[in-house]
Amino acid sequence: MPGKNRKRVLRASLAGGFAAAAASVALPGPGCFLTTAGAGRKSGSVLSGSRSSLPLWPHRCVPGGPVPNRVTAGRRRATGIDEIAGGLGLGELAGAGAAAAALGIAAEMFQIGGGAPEKSTTDEQQTRSNGTVVHERLCDPNDGPDSVRGRFEMICAEAQEKICKTIEDFDGKATFSRERYLKDAGGGGVSRVLRNGEVFEKAGVNLSVVYSQMPAEALRAATTKAGKETGLKLEPGEKVPFFACGLSCVMHPKNPFCPTMHFNYRYFATEFGVWWFGGGTDITPSYLDVEDMKHFHGTYKNVCDQFDPSWYPRFKKWADEYFLIPHRGETRGLGGIFFDDFNSQTPEEHMRFSRNCLNAVTEAYLPILKKHRNRGFSEKQKDWQQIRRGRYAEFNLVYDRGTVFGLKMLKGGAGRIESILMSLPETARWEYCHVPEEGSPEAEIMDAFKNPREWV
Amino acid sequence: MPGKNRKRVLRASLAGGFAAAAASVALPGPGCFLTTAGAGRKSGSVLSGSRSSLPLWPHRCVPGGPVPNRVTAGRRRATGIDEIAGGLGLGELAGAGAAAAALGIAAEMFQIGGGAPEKSTTDEQQTRSNGTVVHERLCDPNDGPDSVRGRFEMICAEAQEKICKTIEDFDGKATFSRERYLKDAGGGGVSRVLRNGEVFEKAGVNLSVVYSQMPAEALRAATTKAGKETGLKLEPGEKVPFFACGLSCVMHPKNPFCPTMHFNYRYFATEFGVWWFGGGTDITPSYLDVEDMKHFHGTYKNVCDQFDPSWYPRFKKWADEYFLIPHRGETRGLGGIFFDDFNSQTPEEHMRFSRNCLNAVTEAYLPILKKHRNRGFSEKQKDWQQIRRGRYAEFNLVYDRGTVFGLKMLKGGAGRIESILMSLPETARWEYCHVPEEGSPEAEIMDAFKNPREWV
Repeated sequence: MPGKNRKRVLRASLAGGFAAAAASVALPGPGCFLTTAGAGRKSGSVLSGSRSSLPLWPHRCVPGGPVPNRVTAGRRRATGIDEIAGGLGLGELAGAGAAAAALGIAAEMFQIGGGAPEKSTTDEQQTRSNGTVVHERLCDPNDGPDSVRGRFEMICAEAQEKICKTIEDFDGKATFSRERYLKDAGGGGVSRVLRNGEVFEKAGVNLSVVYSQMPAEALRAATTKAGKETGLKLEPGEKVPFFACGLSCVMHPKNPFCPTMHFNYRYFATEFGVWWFGGGTDITPSYLDVEDMKHFHGTYKNVCDQFDPSWYPRFKKWADEYFLIPHRGETRGLGGIFFDDFNSQTPEEHMRFSRNCLNAVTEAYLPILKKHRNRGFSEKQKDWQQIRRGRYAEFNLVYDRGTVFGLKMLKGGAGRIESILMSLPETARWEYCHVPEEGSPEAEIMDAFKNPREWV
Repeated sequence: MPGKNRKRVLRASLAGGFAAAAASVALPGPGCFLTTAGAGRKSGSVLSGSRSSLPLWPHRCVPGGPVPNRVTAGRRRATGIDEIAGGLGLGELAGAGAAAAALGIAAEMFQIGGGAPEKSTTDEQQTRSNGTVVHERLCDPNDGPDSVRGRFEMICAEAQEKICKTIEDFDGKATFSRERYLKDAGGGGVSRVLRNGEVFEKAGVNLSVVYSQMPAEALRAATTKAGKETGLKLEPGEKVPFFACGLSCVMHPKNPFCPTMHFNYRYFATEFGVWWFGGGTDITPSYLDVEDMKHFHGTYKNVCDQFDPSWYPRFKKWADEYFLIPHRGETRGLGGIFFDDFNSQTPEEHMRFSRNCLNAVTEAYLPILKKHRNRGFSEKQKDWQQIRRGRYAEFNLVYDRGTVFGLKMLKGGAGRIESILMSLPETARWEYCHVPEEGSPEAEIMDAFKNPREWV
């Protein structure tokens, strides 16, 4: 196993125009593995994500595992747990891309994915072998396992593992690929993508850790609070160093009666001590099933109500407003919860809320898929789903805060296009002047897109 | 015939969120018809667009034709040729939408289509019956048939008719719908769309005439010249009245070996006497055929060379730069010509150049389609075409100057979403981390997208 793990293949950039030199490098040394109950999908076991049963970091350190690539573009940088755990791995990598990630917040904190194209690994053995699943820390060693940063990364990593495993089991056919990438400026990510499954056309779950800086203006735009609390301390154009960590996901099923689902939970902190949490989970059906919406919204209402009964109505409204496609006068889907600039509680409490929201994802979503996954559908119904996917693409490309910001950052050389646009559907459709027939199921849900409703 | 023509059906808005009241109104009175050599598609005849054989305006006025709807939202406005030609038609229309088109430049001048959703007609009889094709003027009567505005409208209207007819003949199965719309602020448009043809998945040709105003900043952004010559005279925020007229088109064939083609020719004039022409024709294949590119670029090189041998290299380079997708580091297609802020010649000369470019569209494009329309293709090749369509959608939604501006205007209530987004492909595809196989035909054309070449 260690032998297999030692070969790390750094992939050529997949994003055109941001190509960096491809290189292979063998990295020796031990790594740190998280042990799960079972290795294979067929075992049906998933990584236990409950807080009580797992230490925040790490589950078990297995000597002989791989180490992350810690040398990029000729300079060494500290990366992760292997150093904390005594790992000694070191690899020299020449010419692995020089694009700076100075403004690399990209889309990863808002939407899905991010990272630098210049160095990434796809070696499955790095992360799963003989019943072990590894999460090599992406946080800097200074942000140790007990820090809010280190703990939030672990919450996201556990949720990613757990959700992907559950989705694989549910799909029964396809599995998630895994790609880990590091950034010159620090941090990195783990992109997991499932394609052409039994149930899912495309599903992606992306973990990101970002060390970067952004202009004061961008920070002000990103958050009201930071604008008030941090931006004012800065001259125009001055850069604000920040940390961000998040997990984001989009799942597009094949069956038009199975809704698309998206979530994103993230933590931001600036060097000025300002921090906040953001995120949400939302659902995008092509056909209205009121019971489904009661279940989905009800699940998140329950999660919210355990903290504060005012949260669900507030975050539900926020989602309806955020996921509006202004040029259509309709929402992308039927909402859920969305929040940002959120720091009214202790970090502990916010992390607990994020984790509970993440833990609720499959509970909120899968019963709906289970109900509809085997329903027959007509070509017309498939076309309607595709038209709604076109709307999804419109929203993501034109309005989604993270995508728009990420694409702008890419022009400057930062970010990873495939991660930023992973949220796009695999297929989409635009029909000129398509209007659902009056009284049809398509018109029924269109009414809900135009006039957001209360479901619970 | 006149009886049939008298019924004008005003359609309900098709754009969600911008819906206005639908109404039907019967309009009496004569109209002005342009006579073509043949009425039906099967006759194979097309409207002759050669400059020498046709007066600039109008071909022949046929009493008894329809008149445009000239009353909107309860107020009368002068619309067109029927008044010049002595038409007396008048219809009262109550409640036909109140959305102002104050900032209604929308996308129509850059990309494709535009207009206000509040009043449009689809009655085929209005425009074609017994061998006649009508173009009811959209220009204000003050901009008469001999003015540059009136003449450029006519150049565009003739080209629209001619191109649609030729494309219908070539397709052999589907025909173009026709929708005429007027704007409260003046002007309007004629949208023509063909769907699900033998050759074409979707083809749209849109004529627009816009009377509007834009903030000085927007004008400065729209054109370097206006920024220098007009913007400086204005206070920030001050509105600049302008006129614009243009014809734009996108054609998406079904066969992956048949390229998508786009063109757009436009004329802008502000009340401060600044005017310019812009436009271009570009081609977007999914597979590279060097001979095709030689033919397409060669055709436009010939058109340019008749005016100035420096134009083709200049406009070819401009197209390569304009149609870049920065976040991919690749161009949308294989270019053609593109120009803007162009007023170095007399308006006469510019109009002649625009017309020659428009006349060259089918000559440049159809031989390529003819060569490939019956080629067999695999699912993989179709998927690749769909992936390139995804890139097309990315460019149009994220970067296209007209689309981006049009969507912004829509938020303010102006424009017509279906016209603005008519340029989107009917179907598109995104595959995570898709990279063409080395040495494959897909990789071959990708190289040309990344490294623009000289074709002639």
